[in-house]
Amino acid sequence: MTRLYEELIIDIPDYPEPGVIFKDVTPVFANARAFAEVIDDLCEHFIDYGVTKVLGAEARGFMVGSAVAYRLGAGFVPARKPGKLPREVISQSYELEYGTDSLEIHADALSENDVVLIIDDLVATGGTCVAMAKLARSQGAKLAGMGFFLELEFLNPRDAIAKDVDCEVFSLVQVK
Amino acid sequence: MTRLYEELIIDIPDYPEPGVIFKDVTPVFANARAFAEVIDDLCEHFIDYGVTKVLGAEARGFMVGSAVAYRLGAGFVPARKPGKLPREVISQSYELEYGTDSLEIHADALSENDVVLIIDDLVATGGTCVAMAKLARSQGAKLAGMGFFLELEFLNPRDAIAKDVDCEVFSLVQVK
Repeated sequence: MTRLYEELIIDIPDYPEPGVIFKDVTPVFANARAFAEVIDDLCEHFIDYGVTKVLGAEARGFMVGSAVAYRLGAGFVPARKPGKLPREVISQSYELEYGTDSLEIHADALSENDVVLIIDDLVATGGTCVAMAKLARSQGAKLAGMGFFLELEFLNPRDAIAKDVDCEVFSLVQVK
Repeated sequence: MTRLYEELIIDIPDYPEPGVIFKDVTPVFANARAFAEVIDDLCEHFIDYGVTKVLGAEARGFMVGSAVAYRLGAGFVPARKPGKLPREVISQSYELEYGTDSLEIHADALSENDVVLIIDDLVATGGTCVAMAKLARSQGAKLAGMGFFLELEFLNPRDAIAKDVDCEVFSLVQVK
């Protein structure tokens, strides 16, 4: 079935730096029908996985993750940049092209009773979603899988994820 | 009716600075039932307002706004910190305790055909939601209103909002 969301992604050449084609997904989310398609298609896939918490990364991951959490009847846990959460956190670093960054969740946000679905708008090299998976695993939580609107297949995120995490990866749109 | 979300907010004294009691809403969103109550109660209020777009501010506003947009069958438009959006933007500054900050939306994100609901997790002095209202108004959009999970009533946000914007303000929990 043709999906409106495939037509609304805007390519931005040479953003944020020369040679990179940035995928702007904001027109997808701004369109009521396309946004509902994204959330419904992600949720349809994971509806029977017993998800208790959706984990999403700052900041675009919040836009997809919280609506998915609501639709699945799950809670939403934000993985934030360092220093943004007010109570005790656990932290996980990940590699960038140059240097490293890290993501934090509250230390009491996940437990061994949770089944965690990792959601982001886009997976590129896989760094942030692997960091989220490690955060969930460190709390003893089970992983339901990872769901993405857009997968930059040419960057081979599935290979990078498989090196560290054994879980299902599902995406709605693959960019070759 | 008693709402679970009222019980799960955590007070953090002296955060982010001495004398301030920070309201941590992440335990509300992490709880499936409480998160659904927040979204359902906000949406029940605005369900008949003909909302076409929900506008939410970076970053916690994304967590509430996108789920509200999904539930209302509306699109979601993020109001972001400067430099985060890849295409042409319109910008609106607002005052902080010391200095100013600003929010941006894509220039094509809203139009005169839109009925815009402004959503945030919390309203304090009203600066960010007034900035969002001005952004919507500058594109000719109608305002459905503003909806918040938490209202810090002791900071009188409704007075501050009424100076600049004529629209309904609705919040689920008032902190006196």
